[in-house]
Amino acid sequence: MFDGIGLLYTADPAREEIQDAALVVEDGVVRWIGRSADAPAADERVDAEGRAVIPGFVDSHSHLVFAGDRTAEFAARMAGERYSAGGIRTTVAATREATVPQLAATTALLVTEMTAQGTTTFEIKSGYGLTVESERRCLEIAGQFTTETTYLGAHVVPPEVSPDDYVRTVTGPMLDACAPHARWIDVFCERGAFDEEQSREILSAGIKAGLRARIHANQLGEGPGVRVACEMGAASADHCTHLTDADVAALADSGVVATLLPGAEFSTRSPYPDARRLLDAGVSVALATDCNPGSSFTTSMPFCVALAVREMRMTPLEAVRAATRGGARALLRDDVGTLREGAQADLVLLDAPSYVHLAYRPGVPLVAQVWRSGRRVV
Amino acid sequence: MFDGIGLLYTADPAREEIQDAALVVEDGVVRWIGRSADAPAADERVDAEGRAVIPGFVDSHSHLVFAGDRTAEFAARMAGERYSAGGIRTTVAATREATVPQLAATTALLVTEMTAQGTTTFEIKSGYGLTVESERRCLEIAGQFTTETTYLGAHVVPPEVSPDDYVRTVTGPMLDACAPHARWIDVFCERGAFDEEQSREILSAGIKAGLRARIHANQLGEGPGVRVACEMGAASADHCTHLTDADVAALADSGVVATLLPGAEFSTRSPYPDARRLLDAGVSVALATDCNPGSSFTTSMPFCVALAVREMRMTPLEAVRAATRGGARALLRDDVGTLREGAQADLVLLDAPSYVHLAYRPGVPLVAQVWRSGRRVV
Ligand SMILES: [Zn+2]
Ligand SMILES: [Zn+2]
Repeated sequence: MFDGIGLLYTADPAREEIQDAALVVEDGVVRWIGRSADAPAADERVDAEGRAVIPGFVDSHSHLVFAGDRTAEFAARMAGERYSAGGIRTTVAATREATVPQLAATTALLVTEMTAQGTTTFEIKSGYGLTVESERRCLEIAGQFTTETTYLGAHVVPPEVSPDDYVRTVTGPMLDACAPHARWIDVFCERGAFDEEQSREILSAGIKAGLRARIHANQLGEGPGVRVACEMGAASADHCTHLTDADVAALADSGVVATLLPGAEFSTRSPYPDARRLLDAGVSVALATDCNPGSSFTTSMPFCVALAVREMRMTPLEAVRAATRGGARALLRDDVGTLREGAQADLVLLDAPSYVHLAYRPGVPLVAQVWRSGRRVV
Repeated sequence: MFDGIGLLYTADPAREEIQDAALVVEDGVVRWIGRSADAPAADERVDAEGRAVIPGFVDSHSHLVFAGDRTAEFAARMAGERYSAGGIRTTVAATREATVPQLAATTALLVTEMTAQGTTTFEIKSGYGLTVESERRCLEIAGQFTTETTYLGAHVVPPEVSPDDYVRTVTGPMLDACAPHARWIDVFCERGAFDEEQSREILSAGIKAGLRARIHANQLGEGPGVRVACEMGAASADHCTHLTDADVAALADSGVVATLLPGAEFSTRSPYPDARRLLDAGVSVALATDCNPGSSFTTSMPFCVALAVREMRMTPLEAVRAATRGGARALLRDDVGTLREGAQADLVLLDAPSYVHLAYRPGVPLVAQVWRSGRRVV
């Protein structure tokens, strides 16, 4: 039993915040939540000493399987160069060269970082191999760390292939090789990557192969991505930086989650998505890191929460909700991201009296303990 | 000896970066720096395993002695309210009520946080007592943690006193009580706090009592602060958010350090100072946290470095320089902030191959080890 919780943020709409709370865990699952004064007896007891508890973060968008270094590209961009998706090819070349143990070691380090910062559920995409075998092995590595694996063969067209040939590969032999290792299919629908028709074809093929759809949409400019997501029933449209009114309405009507990735705007010095507009229109919003070596090399969900509040005009409550329940919705999961009876006991004890401090104390490592399925992992 | 350093950032203009470096420490002082291949023999050896080493951060501006909670004020501001200096009075009321052990415990927690994030030298100001005895005891507490103590009786005029009476107290009995516990005198020169004439009077009195001057200047709008700093030979003008061309020229000519505090702009959702303009004009720039419960509740120098690069157009090199050597200059210290023969052996081992990662990997806790005077403290 967790006792002495100053402020419990459950993310459960039925009772989202509980003061002076306790929480009972049995067999890795939440069995009881309520006021400390009403708590049942329990064998073991963790005293939160008045600190805040929140659900473990759900990071629904990351690219953790890669090799190579893009530090110099980052420094050049900060000196004035604009971000372009072309840099992805640098990582592709290095990833193809790397061995499986090398790739797995890098992924493991980043997963350790994520966990230390309170993330208990996370998605990992392929997308830096761009050959049948390289995409397959990247997904196999991702699968060692999470069940939320995403086939992103359609990240960018590799230089050695024509776009048409590549789409045929992505929807044919590459899909056949990758589908057994993936839960999701994703496409980078953007000028310079894949257009509307190609995106529809790729997502359709994935859905036919039993995968669920998600999409990189409207990051660098307005475009068809969000519309495609809504029409094809994707779980989430990710980035959503440049939206028309019709896009916002389509997201609200369809229930597709808008997953905002402010780390990418931070690290590419780009304008942030307008979260306020989405929330006011009734769109479901998630926050994720987009962790990748090119445009957002952060594993920190607390950092994304702080940015969401500072830059996207979300309240601290909306931001922490988007980073927990929002991420779970973006992954079509109801067993994580919320602390309620029957949910997985994934929780974070903060060195702070409230979740507000994730935004109020930016950059400060506030994660004191992390528990996954009722087991302490940090 | 520290060996196997992938990239050593020394902050020493004579050789600012060394690849494949080693560093020999004796009696808490740096004795030798150079290429690993040329290193002398040493008894003990710390293997940096290819990671980067930088000087310990010098945080030249913080307000760590306080009591009370301003979480709700922060949340309200994020929902649209503007920052005003009036909130300081909330902290003053709580600080006066608090006991010395309570105040010291809060300060100790924040110092521990700072240290864990790589800060090895830091300044602490009074300014939340605003009575003779309360300011004195706040400085006494600050002195338990650092020699860089700053008397900021002139933070704001407390509600129970007239401005004229308060300036007489600050320059009279309060100065007499505080000077023995302080190295510095500071004044919040801003509309709503202290005007030009008052600021000059307060700094002059402090200088006469043997203190060195620093100043809160030009945070909320253009004003006389920077001019006063330059004319009175202050070590540093802090904030520098709103500057005229004459202010920039005066800073460059006088050598007064412009200490930028981007955590304050982050947490008050205000426009950032233009670091590029200052650097291009030849002004010495420092970065500091301004850690305080009202306008910048961060202890993280890595976070300030990342903000400086993203928001103030500093290069990663300029930002890490400002956070180390820059901070030391702002405190008129040449024994810290730079790794060179004879300097204090204060250094940080990063979980990264380069200092660039402090900006490239925002929000990620990258501080692996912290050494102060050759002794490991984290
Ligand atoms: Zn992405
Ligand atoms: Zn200050």
